[in-house]
Amino acid sequence: MLCKICKSKGKKEKAVISIRHHKLALCKEHFLEWFKKQTLKTIKQFSMFGKEETIGVAVSGGKDSLSLWQLLTECGFKTVGIHIALGIDKNDYSKKSLELCSRLSERINRPLIVFDMKREIGYTIEEIAKLSGRKDVCSVCGTFKRYLINKIAVNEKMAAVATGHNLDDESAVLLSNTMRWDTGYLARQYPVLEEKEGFAKKVKPFCFFTEKEIVSYAILKEIEFMETGCPNAGSATSPVYKQALAFLEHKMPGTKLRFYREFLKKGRPAFEKETKEEYNLAPCRTCGMPTTAGVCSVCRILEKVRGVNAKSGKN
Amino acid sequence: MLCKICKSKGKKEKAVISIRHHKLALCKEHFLEWFKKQTLKTIKQFSMFGKEETIGVAVSGGKDSLSLWQLLTECGFKTVGIHIALGIDKNDYSKKSLELCSRLSERINRPLIVFDMKREIGYTIEEIAKLSGRKDVCSVCGTFKRYLINKIAVNEKMAAVATGHNLDDESAVLLSNTMRWDTGYLARQYPVLEEKEGFAKKVKPFCFFTEKEIVSYAILKEIEFMETGCPNAGSATSPVYKQALAFLEHKMPGTKLRFYREFLKKGRPAFEKETKEEYNLAPCRTCGMPTTAGVCSVCRILEKVRGVNAKSGKN
Repeated sequence: MLCKICKSKGKKEKAVISIRHHKLALCKEHFLEWFKKQTLKTIKQFSMFGKEETIGVAVSGGKDSLSLWQLLTECGFKTVGIHIALGIDKNDYSKKSLELCSRLSERINRPLIVFDMKREIGYTIEEIAKLSGRKDVCSVCGTFKRYLINKIAVNEKMAAVATGHNLDDESAVLLSNTMRWDTGYLARQYPVLEEKEGFAKKVKPFCFFTEKEIVSYAILKEIEFMETGCPNAGSATSPVYKQALAFLEHKMPGTKLRFYREFLKKGRPAFEKETKEEYNLAPCRTCGMPTTAGVCSVCRILEKVRGVNAKSGKN
Repeated sequence: MLCKICKSKGKKEKAVISIRHHKLALCKEHFLEWFKKQTLKTIKQFSMFGKEETIGVAVSGGKDSLSLWQLLTECGFKTVGIHIALGIDKNDYSKKSLELCSRLSERINRPLIVFDMKREIGYTIEEIAKLSGRKDVCSVCGTFKRYLINKIAVNEKMAAVATGHNLDDESAVLLSNTMRWDTGYLARQYPVLEEKEGFAKKVKPFCFFTEKEIVSYAILKEIEFMETGCPNAGSATSPVYKQALAFLEHKMPGTKLRFYREFLKKGRPAFEKETKEEYNLAPCRTCGMPTTAGVCSVCRILEKVRGVNAKSGKN
């Protein structure tokens, strides 16, 4: 297959990627150009952030977040990486993840803020899950990562936190919310979550890219990333929705993108009008971060963890 | 497995069906009882029709529509079968379909109105599709069946037309409409379509039953039905959505029912408020049935068919 853009200019260049749902086959140069342009378009369309502002990029060590950090920096945005070191020993998962984030930080010459859970809180994420009696590490991990990344962004007065969520993630979450017709979640699912008393602005500049497109970018840009997933993953239900969407995408290319884009255009506005939920946020009595519950969920989990540990005499 | 209801009464009766998403295993007697009760509940919940009214039941010869006709009659409703004889010769499809409808008509002692397309219009459905230049017989067939059944119901002053649409059909159509966020269709998808200038009321009393439940009913009631599908089927896209839902149902029993029920409760109301489409219906200049287009789609297709046939000298 030949690059479509080169071909239109009378040149013959082999395509490195074929993007079925866009009917595009592109060479390395034109794919990288397309990828950059699409990202800038998304940033502009949703008024995500500008060049004068400091943007936190939540980096896990995976292809999505590292590619995002690389690209935003290359585009001239003032980025700072934020990495939560979870303390997962199995397969040296956390150690390797941090290493890959640090390596990119050096390469692009941008600072990396690292929050080490074991050092700062006293427990790894697995210890927290276990001691608080949660079987599902993933949901506890999500709660802590969101909390910590937000806290860092607020403290550092960052204009926004960018995450590497891709189209596969977003469409799977959308399908899950849709299958339950959870109108509250549907009203809130959007590439931008505005800043609000104690919550930094959250943005997803890669939300229209498939995993395949992002991994192609990472490889072409020679970004080293974690190729194995978290050893704790597997208990979440989203893979089921991802599989259902993969099937539909295979049968009808473009399904995922259309599903998500049309939702933003036509689906979400209907729910937005329906559910004007008002939250009564107040500072958490323990940590001061905003919560609707008196004591925030992170502090409640930590109370339990510390209580258990005090009783068992480990502390 | 034992019947749950018999068990609760201290009896041991083997279950003939296990309904995973309702966590029910039932013997023949209790399944038939459950099936009847559920149908009556749906009829009542959506104010479909009453015992004093004449109800047309659109029967194709398949398990869904024949089971519906049997059950409604058994419940004491005044039913009349309506069958459109399409003239499909392959595998004697249309001949066998009519035969099965007639057989049930005799068994339950209720009249069957038969509209024979070849005799009444001059063409079989396949001839119409071919001569009007449509490759997809199914969509032309759908248009004609809806038109003819409605016309018969209006002429016969029936209070409603009941169709055998099941949960597999409804949830697949819902998924298809949702994947495109077609808010107009989403606002209209409902177990009842109210009567409106020239359109009879349409109702779907089986919309919460899976195919499996209906086929079990048909077998237990010894209803003879067409076991092979229409020889023209296969070009529609709905099987893809049915497959995706079957996958989700397998992984998470109850998905289909929850998806459809929650849609009716929470999804649809949001779209209903959004899209208050107004149609300007007027009698078709050719046949007098209501249309938004001057000449209705059936008459336009027939004009084309007759024009082609006149030119080719066949008429």
